[in-house]
Amino acid sequence: MEKFFNAQSVAVVGVSDKPFNLAQGIVANLLKFGYQGKILPVGPRGGNVFGLPIYPRLEDLPQAVDLAVIMTPAKVVPQAVETCGRLGIKRVVVESAGFSELNEAGRAMEEEIRVLLHRYGMRLVGPNGLGLINMATGLALPFASLDPPPIKGRIAIISQSGGVGSHLFAWMAKEGLGLSKFLSLGNRLDVAENEVLSYFLADPESQAVYLYLEGLRDGRELMALAKEAAKPIYIHAPNVGEETALIAHSHTASLATDERVFEAACRQSGMLPIKRQTEFLNAAKLAGQPPVTGSRLVVLSRTGGEAVVTAYACRQWGFKLPPLSPQLAELLTQRSRAGIIRPTNPIDLGDIFDFAVYEEIVAALCRDPEVDAILLNYGPMAEFEMERGRQMARYCLEQARAAAKPLAVTILVTLEEEEFFRETLGTPVFHFPEDAVEALAAHRYLAQRGETAARATPPLFDPERAAHLLPEPPGFLSLPQALSLIEAVGIAVAPWRAAAAPEEAVAGAAILGYPVCLKLAAASLVHKTEAGAVLLDLKDAAAVAAGFARLAEIAGESLPSGEDWQVVVMDQVKGGRELLVGARRDPVFGPVLAFGAGGVGTEVLEDISLSIAPLDLPQARAQIGATRVGKMLAGIRGQAPADLDALGRTLAVLSQLMLQFPQIQEVDLNPVLAFPGEPGLVAVDARIRVGFP
Amino acid sequence: MEKFFNAQSVAVVGVSDKPFNLAQGIVANLLKFGYQGKILPVGPRGGNVFGLPIYPRLEDLPQAVDLAVIMTPAKVVPQAVETCGRLGIKRVVVESAGFSELNEAGRAMEEEIRVLLHRYGMRLVGPNGLGLINMATGLALPFASLDPPPIKGRIAIISQSGGVGSHLFAWMAKEGLGLSKFLSLGNRLDVAENEVLSYFLADPESQAVYLYLEGLRDGRELMALAKEAAKPIYIHAPNVGEETALIAHSHTASLATDERVFEAACRQSGMLPIKRQTEFLNAAKLAGQPPVTGSRLVVLSRTGGEAVVTAYACRQWGFKLPPLSPQLAELLTQRSRAGIIRPTNPIDLGDIFDFAVYEEIVAALCRDPEVDAILLNYGPMAEFEMERGRQMARYCLEQARAAAKPLAVTILVTLEEEEFFRETLGTPVFHFPEDAVEALAAHRYLAQRGETAARATPPLFDPERAAHLLPEPPGFLSLPQALSLIEAVGIAVAPWRAAAAPEEAVAGAAILGYPVCLKLAAASLVHKTEAGAVLLDLKDAAAVAAGFARLAEIAGESLPSGEDWQVVVMDQVKGGRELLVGARRDPVFGPVLAFGAGGVGTEVLEDISLSIAPLDLPQARAQIGATRVGKMLAGIRGQAPADLDALGRTLAVLSQLMLQFPQIQEVDLNPVLAFPGEPGLVAVDARIRVGFP
Repeated sequence: MEKFFNAQSVAVVGVSDKPFNLAQGIVANLLKFGYQGKILPVGPRGGNVFGLPIYPRLEDLPQAVDLAVIMTPAKVVPQAVETCGRLGIKRVVVESAGFSELNEAGRAMEEEIRVLLHRYGMRLVGPNGLGLINMATGLALPFASLDPPPIKGRIAIISQSGGVGSHLFAWMAKEGLGLSKFLSLGNRLDVAENEVLSYFLADPESQAVYLYLEGLRDGRELMALAKEAAKPIYIHAPNVGEETALIAHSHTASLATDERVFEAACRQSGMLPIKRQTEFLNAAKLAGQPPVTGSRLVVLSRTGGEAVVTAYACRQWGFKLPPLSPQLAELLTQRSRAGIIRPTNPIDLGDIFDFAVYEEIVAALCRDPEVDAILLNYGPMAEFEMERGRQMARYCLEQARAAAKPLAVTILVTLEEEEFFRETLGTPVFHFPEDAVEALAAHRYLAQRGETAARATPPLFDPERAAHLLPEPPGFLSLPQALSLIEAVGIAVAPWRAAAAPEEAVAGAAILGYPVCLKLAAASLVHKTEAGAVLLDLKDAAAVAAGFARLAEIAGESLPSGEDWQVVVMDQVKGGRELLVGARRDPVFGPVLAFGAGGVGTEVLEDISLSIAPLDLPQARAQIGATRVGKMLAGIRGQAPADLDALGRTLAVLSQLMLQFPQIQEVDLNPVLAFPGEPGLVAVDARIRVGFP
Repeated sequence: MEKFFNAQSVAVVGVSDKPFNLAQGIVANLLKFGYQGKILPVGPRGGNVFGLPIYPRLEDLPQAVDLAVIMTPAKVVPQAVETCGRLGIKRVVVESAGFSELNEAGRAMEEEIRVLLHRYGMRLVGPNGLGLINMATGLALPFASLDPPPIKGRIAIISQSGGVGSHLFAWMAKEGLGLSKFLSLGNRLDVAENEVLSYFLADPESQAVYLYLEGLRDGRELMALAKEAAKPIYIHAPNVGEETALIAHSHTASLATDERVFEAACRQSGMLPIKRQTEFLNAAKLAGQPPVTGSRLVVLSRTGGEAVVTAYACRQWGFKLPPLSPQLAELLTQRSRAGIIRPTNPIDLGDIFDFAVYEEIVAALCRDPEVDAILLNYGPMAEFEMERGRQMARYCLEQARAAAKPLAVTILVTLEEEEFFRETLGTPVFHFPEDAVEALAAHRYLAQRGETAARATPPLFDPERAAHLLPEPPGFLSLPQALSLIEAVGIAVAPWRAAAAPEEAVAGAAILGYPVCLKLAAASLVHKTEAGAVLLDLKDAAAVAAGFARLAEIAGESLPSGEDWQVVVMDQVKGGRELLVGARRDPVFGPVLAFGAGGVGTEVLEDISLSIAPLDLPQARAQIGATRVGKMLAGIRGQAPADLDALGRTLAVLSQLMLQFPQIQEVDLNPVLAFPGEPGLVAVDARIRVGFP
C-alpha cells in the first residue's frame, strides 16, 4: 500500500489532447491537488496536455515510474498491464469500467490480468473505480472532477463505489471534514478492503476510517482488524443483505437477516455500522474529539426551545441529563440576574448576554469527572454579540481540549457562524442538536466497544462422538439423525423413538408413556406444522396407530415420490416457553448463533438476537438477555427464572459444533422448551443441514 | 387573525435610540422586510430610530393603529396593554419575557392582562415569543435579527418557541424553502395553536403548515382541524411526553407513553409527527408536489453506488422498486450502447452521457400509471455536461409537473448544482438519496391519511346499568366493583365470588367448582402478583381456607392500616393467551384505548397499540392487528384464530364507556384471556379508577 500512496512518479495511460478524454481528468486532478512527483501522460496520439508531453507508449517514458494509472477502453487494459509488468512498474491502478461488473468477457479479462499480476509480482487497485488519493502528496488519481475538492484532514476513506466516495468528499468539504487518504476498491480484482484498512489503521496521518462496501470479502478478518484498531471505524454496507440473502431458506436463516448478522459483527468488533450517509457526516464531526466514555451529558442552550428538542433527543439516544453539581448550581445562582437562569440540565441560557458566564460554566463542566460530554447550542442573537461570542467559543474549545472532555457545538440561527467554527477554529459544528446527540451516541458506541474476545471454553462435548453421527451426503439430516446428534453434544431432547411402522410407534409410545406426539420426518418437509405433520397429545395406542396412518397418508400425498420418511414418537411435553436456538454459517462472517422466541410465532414475534461464533458462556447469557423472551425467562415481577445457564450452555455448544465441523451449514432447534422455576430445558425439534455450500 | 397578519399600521412599544435596545430590532426587521404599512416607534425617551421619530407615549401617536407590539420590561406590560385598550388598539403582540414561564408574579401579571383583554375586547399574541411575520406584506415583528432572513414561499409556521422557529427559518432559507406566514405562540396567554392553524389552513398563500409545540392546548380540536385539512400538516411536539407523564401511574397509563398517544392522534388525523428537525426540512421539500399515492418508486441514478444506497433506503421506508414497464425496458435496450444500461430499477445511468435518454425515461415514467413517484439522483460529471444537464433537469421537472407525478431530485458530487435547482428552477433538492426517500415516505403518509372517522356504533351496553355501578367517591373501584361493572357492560369475566371470611371463600369455591384462584382485593394494591396476593390453582376447600388466611396475613402486613380489603374467589381459567385491554383519559387527547400483550410480561414485551376514542368495530380490529400478539391471534401458520370479533367489541365497549362517563379515568383489564380456536374471551382482572383529575 505504501508504494501506491507514496509513488514518486505516475504514468497516466489513456491520455489524449481531445476534449471528452476521461484520462485527462486524472492529469487535471494531479495538477490541481499539487502532486509533488512526476506526471507522465501516455497515449497513442501523443501531443500535449496541460503543458505536459504525452508519450505515445509506456516504453517511450524517459524514466522508470512507481505507478501506472490506466483509463483506456477495457479491452486494451490487459495489454497495458502486461507492458507495465515488463517495464518493472509494480503498482497499477485501473479506473476503466467494462470488466466483471459488465459481462463474462469482462470477467475473463480480469482473470487474464490476475495471471499477469502473479507473473510479474505486481499489485493492482480496481478496475472500475476512482483510484486513490493521498492528500499529503497531492497524489489524486480520480478521473472525475471533484468540485468542491476534498480538504486536507484526518479521515481516511475506503469506498467500493467511486461515486459514493466522491459525493461524500464533497459533503465532507462542505462540513469542514478533512480527508487524509482515499482508495476506491472498484471490482477488487487484487487489492481489497482489509489490506487497505490495515494500512490506514497504521497510517499516522489518519485518525478515523470510513468504509463504504457493497460486499465484504472476508468478514472474520475484518472483525479481527477492527478489534485491534485504536481508531474509530465507520462502515456503511447497504448491500450486505442482498448478497447473502439467497442462502436464506429455513427458519434461522431467513430470520437472521444478513443486515442483523452484519450489525452483530459490528457490535462484537467495535465498528460503527452506518445506515445513512448523513449519520457518518454527523459522527465524523467528533472524530478528533476525546472518547465519549459514558452517558452523562450536560447541555447548554441559547434557546429554551432547542433545549427541549435536545432533551428529547437525549431520551431517544439514551443520554442522561444529570443534575448539575452543587458548585455549578451555586455559580449559576450567583450569576443569575433576577433568577433567570435555573440550575437545570439542559441549562437554558436564553437571557444571558454575558458570555463570561458561558465560559465559567464550561470550565466547571470540564473539571467535573461526573460529566462525560458537553453540548453547546449557541448562536449570537445580534451583531453586537458576534465578536465576544467568538472569543467565548475559542475559550470553551480550548478548555475542553485541555481537559480531554468531548464538546459538541450546534450553531443556532446565525448560520454564517458555522463557517467561523469550521474554518477559523477548525471545529466542525452541528446544524441541529439532534445531529449532535446522534454523533455523541455514535462515539459512545465506539468508546464502549470491545466486547472482549470470547474466552476459550473447554470442550462441551466429545467431538468424536458427534463426528460419528454426522452423515456424509450433503442435505438435511433425518429427524432421528438430527435428534441423535443433538443428544450426543449434550443438549436434552424430549424422550423419543423412531418408528417405520404403526406397531413400532405404538411400542415406542408404550415405553415413553402417554400422552405422546407423532411427527412425520422427511427431508423435504420444512414446516411440519402447516403440513399437518405433527399430531399432538395422543392419549392411547389406538390414537397412535391412527396417527401413524394419517401421517403415512400425508407422506403419500405431500412428499416427492420415493422420498424416505419415518415417524418420530415423542413424549408430549406440557407447558414451557417456546424458544428458538439455532446456528447457521454466514458466507461472510462464518458461524452465526441465533436465540429468541420460537414456535409458530417466530416470524411474527421478531425477537431474535444474533452473534458471531465463538462465544463463551457469559456472552451467551448476554445474547439471551438481549431478547424480550430472554428478559421474561430471567424472571420478571416475582416470577421464577428458567434455567438460563442451560440455555447459555446450549448456545455455546452450538458455537463449538459449528466451529469444529465446517460441513454443518445450519442447526435449527425450534422449539426448545424452557420452564420457569425448573432446571434444564428440552429440545422437541431439530433441523440440521450439512454439506459445503 | 386576519387583523394581526394584515395590520396596516404598527406601534412598536419599548423603543429607544440606545444600542442594545431590543425593541429596536423590531423596527429594523420591519424595515428590512419592506413592511408596506406605517411604523410608529414608542418609547419614553423619545428621539429617533432609523430615521423614524420615537413617540414618548402611545397617546402621542398621530394616528390610530391596527396593532401594537410590546417589547418592554415585563412589569410595565399590563399598563401598556391597558393603554392600548383605552386607545382602541384591538390587536397586541407581547414579546417581553418574565411572565408565567418565570414565576408566580409573572403568572399574576398574565391574569391581570387576561382581564384587560376581556374588558376591552382585545386579542393578544404572546407573551414571551417572537411575534409574527407576514411575508406578503413585510410585517415582520421578531425583535431578534434573522440572518439569513426567511425567503418568501408557501410554508406557514406556528412555533411556540421563537428560537426553534427562527433556527428553522434560517435553514429553510438555506434549503430554498419559502415562508408564507409565521406566528410564535410564546406563553399562549390568549391566541393558541388551533386558532392560528385554522387561519393558516384557510390562507391561500400557505400550502403547508408546520407546528412546533411544547404542549397541546386542545388535542381533540387539533385532530378535528387536521382531519378536515386539505394541506399537509407537520407537527413537532418533543415535549408531549413530559407534560403528561405525571399522570402515568398504573399499567395502561405508563405503557401508553404519551408520545405514542400523540403518534396515534397524528395517525388518526393525518398529521405527520416530526421527531427531528431535519425530517421536516426533508419532508417540506416535497410540500408543493403532487401527492405520493403509493409505494411504487422508480429510481434513476447517475452512480451505481448511490443506486444501491437508494435501494436500501427504499427497503427501510417500505418503497417497492417495481420492474420497469416492457416499453421502458425496450427503450433502454435500444438506447444502450454495448448493453451498458440494464433495464433494472434503480436504473443505473452511470455511463450514459446522452441526457436525451434521461428525458425519454422520465417522460415515459410520467405517463406510466403504475409508477407512484420518481427519484432522480443526478450530478454532472464534468464541466462540459453542466449546460445540457440543466436543460434536461428543467425538462424533467416540467414533465413531472404536467403529469402530476411526484419527482424528487438528489444532487450528487457537484453541490453547486443544488443552487441552480433551488434558485433558477425553484425546486428544493435533496443532499442524499436517503433524505429523498424519507421525504417521499412522509408524503405517502400524508396522502394515505384519513383513517375515516369512526362510524357511529349502536350502544353496546345499557348506560343506566353501568351508571348505577359507578361509585361516587374518586379513586380505584374495589375488585368486586370493577368486575361487576365490566360484566354490566357485557365483557365476560371468569366466574367469581367476593368473600370477606374464609368460610365465604370456601362456599364460593364450592359453587364455582375447583380449581379456583384467590385474589386479595384492596385499593392500594396495584401489582397483586409481586405482592404474592394472587394464589393460583387451589384444588380443595382446605387450600382455599389456607389461602384466605395467607391473604389476610398479607393484608395485615402490606396494606395501610384500616384499609378495606376483600378476597375474590375466581374460577381458575386454564390456558389462553394473556392480553391487555385498557383505556385511560389523556389530558390532551381524551380517552385513549390500549390493546396488546398482557400478563406479567406487559412491560417487557412492549407490544401495545393505542388509539384515540371513538373507534368503531373495524377500527378496533385494525388496532388489534397492529400488535404482534394480534397477528398471533389471527391464526398464523395454520393455527386456529381466537375470537377477534369479541376482542374488537371489548375495545369498542371501552370506547363508549369512556366517552359516556367522563368520571372514568382509567380501565385496565389485564389479563384478558383469549383462546385460539374457541369463541369468546374472559377477563380475569380489572382495575378501574374514577374521579376528575
